[in-house]
Amino acid sequence: MICRYSFGTPLPTDAVVRKLPAETGALPFFGLQENGDGSLTFSLSLHPEEVIFGLGQMVRGIDKRGHRYESWNSDVFNHTESVSSLYGSHNFVVFFSPERLLGLYLDDPGRVVWDLGYEHRDQAVITSLSGNLDVYLIRENTLAGIAKAFRQLTGRSYLPPRWAFGYIQSRWGYASEEELRSVISAHRERHIPLDAVCMDIDYMVDFKNFTWKPDAFPDLKQFQQKLKEDHIRLVPIIDAGIKVEEGYGPYDSGEAGDCFCKKEDGSNFVAAVWPGRCCFPDFLREDVRRWFGDLYRPLLEAGIEGFWNDMNEPALFYSDEGVADAFAAADRIRSGGVDYETTWWLKDVFSGIANNMDDYRRFYHLVDGKPVRHDLVHNLYGAGMTRATAEGFRRFDPDHRLLLFSRSSFIGAHRNGGIWQGDNFSWWSHLKMALQMLPNLNLCGFLFTGCDLGGFGCNVTEDLLERFLQLGVFTPLMRNHSALHTRDQEIYRFDTWELMRDTVSVRYALLPWLYSEFMKAALRDEMLFRPLAFEYPDDKRAVHTQDQLLLGDGCMIAPVYEQNASGRFVYLPEDMLMIRFRSAHDYDLVPMEKGSHWIDLSLAEFPLFVKKNRAVFLCPGGESSELLDDTRFTVIGQLEIPGTYDLYRDDGTSVSPDLESNLTHIRLVPDNALKREIQC
Amino acid sequence: MICRYSFGTPLPTDAVVRKLPAETGALPFFGLQENGDGSLTFSLSLHPEEVIFGLGQMVRGIDKRGHRYESWNSDVFNHTESVSSLYGSHNFVVFFSPERLLGLYLDDPGRVVWDLGYEHRDQAVITSLSGNLDVYLIRENTLAGIAKAFRQLTGRSYLPPRWAFGYIQSRWGYASEEELRSVISAHRERHIPLDAVCMDIDYMVDFKNFTWKPDAFPDLKQFQQKLKEDHIRLVPIIDAGIKVEEGYGPYDSGEAGDCFCKKEDGSNFVAAVWPGRCCFPDFLREDVRRWFGDLYRPLLEAGIEGFWNDMNEPALFYSDEGVADAFAAADRIRSGGVDYETTWWLKDVFSGIANNMDDYRRFYHLVDGKPVRHDLVHNLYGAGMTRATAEGFRRFDPDHRLLLFSRSSFIGAHRNGGIWQGDNFSWWSHLKMALQMLPNLNLCGFLFTGCDLGGFGCNVTEDLLERFLQLGVFTPLMRNHSALHTRDQEIYRFDTWELMRDTVSVRYALLPWLYSEFMKAALRDEMLFRPLAFEYPDDKRAVHTQDQLLLGDGCMIAPVYEQNASGRFVYLPEDMLMIRFRSAHDYDLVPMEKGSHWIDLSLAEFPLFVKKNRAVFLCPGGESSELLDDTRFTVIGQLEIPGTYDLYRDDGTSVSPDLESNLTHIRLVPDNALKREIQC
Repeated sequence: MICRYSFGTPLPTDAVVRKLPAETGALPFFGLQENGDGSLTFSLSLHPEEVIFGLGQMVRGIDKRGHRYESWNSDVFNHTESVSSLYGSHNFVVFFSPERLLGLYLDDPGRVVWDLGYEHRDQAVITSLSGNLDVYLIRENTLAGIAKAFRQLTGRSYLPPRWAFGYIQSRWGYASEEELRSVISAHRERHIPLDAVCMDIDYMVDFKNFTWKPDAFPDLKQFQQKLKEDHIRLVPIIDAGIKVEEGYGPYDSGEAGDCFCKKEDGSNFVAAVWPGRCCFPDFLREDVRRWFGDLYRPLLEAGIEGFWNDMNEPALFYSDEGVADAFAAADRIRSGGVDYETTWWLKDVFSGIANNMDDYRRFYHLVDGKPVRHDLVHNLYGAGMTRATAEGFRRFDPDHRLLLFSRSSFIGAHRNGGIWQGDNFSWWSHLKMALQMLPNLNLCGFLFTGCDLGGFGCNVTEDLLERFLQLGVFTPLMRNHSALHTRDQEIYRFDTWELMRDTVSVRYALLPWLYSEFMKAALRDEMLFRPLAFEYPDDKRAVHTQDQLLLGDGCMIAPVYEQNASGRFVYLPEDMLMIRFRSAHDYDLVPMEKGSHWIDLSLAEFPLFVKKNRAVFLCPGGESSELLDDTRFTVIGQLEIPGTYDLYRDDGTSVSPDLESNLTHIRLVPDNALKREIQC
Repeated sequence: MICRYSFGTPLPTDAVVRKLPAETGALPFFGLQENGDGSLTFSLSLHPEEVIFGLGQMVRGIDKRGHRYESWNSDVFNHTESVSSLYGSHNFVVFFSPERLLGLYLDDPGRVVWDLGYEHRDQAVITSLSGNLDVYLIRENTLAGIAKAFRQLTGRSYLPPRWAFGYIQSRWGYASEEELRSVISAHRERHIPLDAVCMDIDYMVDFKNFTWKPDAFPDLKQFQQKLKEDHIRLVPIIDAGIKVEEGYGPYDSGEAGDCFCKKEDGSNFVAAVWPGRCCFPDFLREDVRRWFGDLYRPLLEAGIEGFWNDMNEPALFYSDEGVADAFAAADRIRSGGVDYETTWWLKDVFSGIANNMDDYRRFYHLVDGKPVRHDLVHNLYGAGMTRATAEGFRRFDPDHRLLLFSRSSFIGAHRNGGIWQGDNFSWWSHLKMALQMLPNLNLCGFLFTGCDLGGFGCNVTEDLLERFLQLGVFTPLMRNHSALHTRDQEIYRFDTWELMRDTVSVRYALLPWLYSEFMKAALRDEMLFRPLAFEYPDDKRAVHTQDQLLLGDGCMIAPVYEQNASGRFVYLPEDMLMIRFRSAHDYDLVPMEKGSHWIDLSLAEFPLFVKKNRAVFLCPGGESSELLDDTRFTVIGQLEIPGTYDLYRDDGTSVSPDLESNLTHIRLVPDNALKREIQC
């Protein structure tokens, strides 16, 4: 049951697809406080055993209790545990204790502060700074029921094309056909599976959206066509800002359509990003989204089938006003004489030029024809860009699914694209963070996601990349991505590349099954990754487990995320079969009993756990998702009673696939084997 | 067996107390490479199972394999896993594999780069930038043997007074008698045990060393005297830099003795720290150490018995030259017009004013009468200050041990003082880091140590402080310390202060036993905290365990370091008894078998594991270390065969205590109980 309570004058957010009448009674459960400055605070006493799931893309554990978070989409390059915001705002949490099961969703496009047991461990105190919002309470009998109800409120998750489940190689710096070809060849020569390569900002002319360097990419269409013969797709990046440059088509057409966000005086708001001074499309307007979405057309016509949208919080490197303010501050300090406080302040002044709150208050959107200052709708920006892109794709090709994943997001954007988990670092703690973020992203509707495997910033080590890949085997987006000036991070750069290749081979063997699990979850409004509490709500151990995830129908993952570990501890909430993978063809099958276990896992090894009477399907494997044979499988599982596995298969691109007609019902016949071969 | 190999012209470091003749043959085991720039590289192939202990104060795991570290004492305020240096340089590592047991010590006061399996997982590549160093190889039959041999080479660990094992409350910001009194009262009123309060920089007049604010501390001597009646000691901070101010005694006397480091032109090197522009004592000179050590005298005469030395890497906030360079760079950028690269560079320019390498190359020390540029002996600075202080103490009071702990250190400084583990954050990952750092600090000789409980920077939560305290119960230095502008962190500020008080009560019940274990370890040149490999070298599980430590004779700790955890996994390398503490009087005794275990541990609970036929001694407890009765004990342990526990007791202050005569041999008689009462 979902009830909507409305406060103030909520702005439209496009987050919800089911319009519910507002309740007329008081909001139950929560204490409500008007703070005098327009902000509204909702508070709730927490049970000692209460667990809080949700908040989607956020640092810290699966259980969000015990920290203060903020919904404020941020280009933050250092995801430590004291950070309070990342790139997306996902205002949905579920309170779960022996006495309560309650979903809370705040449809609010501005800043929201979530004190989930920070100031007092036994209190959740949630504040909407604008006080204009819709609050939804969701009550169901199960955690999964709440997740499903929330998805039905906010709409079906984005469906990527099937090839997007292949391994994707990416690096900031790839700048030409030649360079991309050599990266691809290095994979193919070593039989490292690969389906796509990303093109980061360096493919563009002066970082201008929708351009590509003519010397480096003399015939992009032919290049993409040739690569497709080798089953490789290009995935270029598009940023939010449009360079201010007369004669540059997107700027001229944007100007002609008056598409850009304005300052109070009516002039375009200008701030610098990669290409220098840019204007920012007002993605909240339908006509602007249509204009922007159509800008992808030349790339789509060149045969591109996938994009990633970046810098759409929006990130602002600097504005003329901000730079002037900083230099003025520096002048004041210089003339006054420095001391330790002023030198620190100078540092803050110059590092604060980027993503400055003053800039976010300098510009306006048009909402229903009326200007709304950006900071009041800040968290919608990335979602608006995703929507513009997805709508453009649908106009260009209404019959095929294209790949799209974004950095910034808001609930609602999950219908139009995936996201990556942000600009992480080559840190072991970020491998763990990626794992812990997955179920909360799924809960908030973001099913097509994954982290930058190996880490984006900082320098990776080969063992860290190998362990990242072992998580990536299971994430829908499996992309190795790294930043300019960091250590080369392609698999083939490392002494132990064969281990890594073997790890990727497991992904390809599992791909048809993983795709099946993903599509069923998406089409049924369910989650692919779930906290253990979702299936074992009465098992306190399971409820508090922070480093294992349920995957699909009857599986569990438990990656190693510690350097130099020779294995890890795992809690099995029931009897399961462990598949200890070394490659698609080399694995141990170990039946294990409910309880606590230490699992030996050398650097080459990673486990997948399968419940009794459930099955995992391994296909013969291959080097591209398009070359996989999804009719012959090795079926792994302990089958003690007759059952069925519903294998989802489709053409990989249909826009509105029908779940039921795409299912093959495979009989699981009890036997004494742990694996068997089938054809279907 | 220890062999010394000498390269180039090593500078004196005071690290070693046993002078060994240099070997004339080639250095065995290691590949040696001269790099042409004076630097020397030592390389070693690593076994797949090789573990590397050592490097003392450093980020990352107990096993240091898989990262690149640098010996370069740094005031670094963000101890993430990609940091390569902290405040101390401890150039000692032990390689341990099924095929090797080898200690390597580089007596080198300059920068050393340790690639311990970073570039290639199977290679250690260690580079001395100066190429002037003594290399010691230590071969023994056991890990403990290597640790002991290294201590015998470098000298006995510092012995603090017994009261320093009490709970210490500290916070940057305490600025007056009144404020300290109220903090102390808040502890005493709630019966939270307490032995000392630290005075951070705010007690001084304008942050000038060896001064105290006359209004805030009108009679320091009387204040300290009164507090001692309540068994409370004051522990003031002293920084490295001496403010440039004529008429300020330490500056005038320093100038008169020509005690400060010089620039190339012979003038004093000046850089700003807390008090503004400062000179830096040349601690490498004996006469300077004598002058500086005597500056503590007024505070000692006021009855102060403990100090902490800070900012002695040395930290340099800025120099006039550095500020001028930064503004000149800003001017160049301003006139040239900014772009994204220059705005980032501006940020780097201003944040790089502090601790700038140009500054570290601007000044000189006198070594044997000859000028040596600072960067060549950088890592000796903090150790020199510690030595100056300790020598001053010994001159002032040759008969009593005083408390001294430093931020910066070098091997050799472990003879003169303790260290704290640095300016950590209120992060769960830093609780784990503190745990993992302990055995490596002990290996390098630093026995009296502990982390800032609750975390220095960032804002703590009550559960994090409670879990920090549960580690702190076992660390010799048990100090709660936090930074200005962070959340108040004294125990009594929190809803759950009673849990925290009960945790501290366990420390006090254990204190005589912990003191006994510490003193025996120090006097026998052993370690208090050891990696599990030290006792279970053939047990692969134990060797690779990264989050449990052996403590003293026959015990093991395994703290919880995850938020919202309901317990943790523990590996027992043999049968042990678990004491699950809630308070000094409320605990469970649970015999457990060798193997893997999940232990339920509510927020109030923490475990101590005791091997069979070993015992832990709990005294009746109290609120000050001076009020503890160390003649009546509850003895906890599974006693199956007759044995003895050697209880070390002394007056808590003797400078050269005799181990044997201070031991009471307590007979451990087999029985069927898990605890029994004794008097001794």
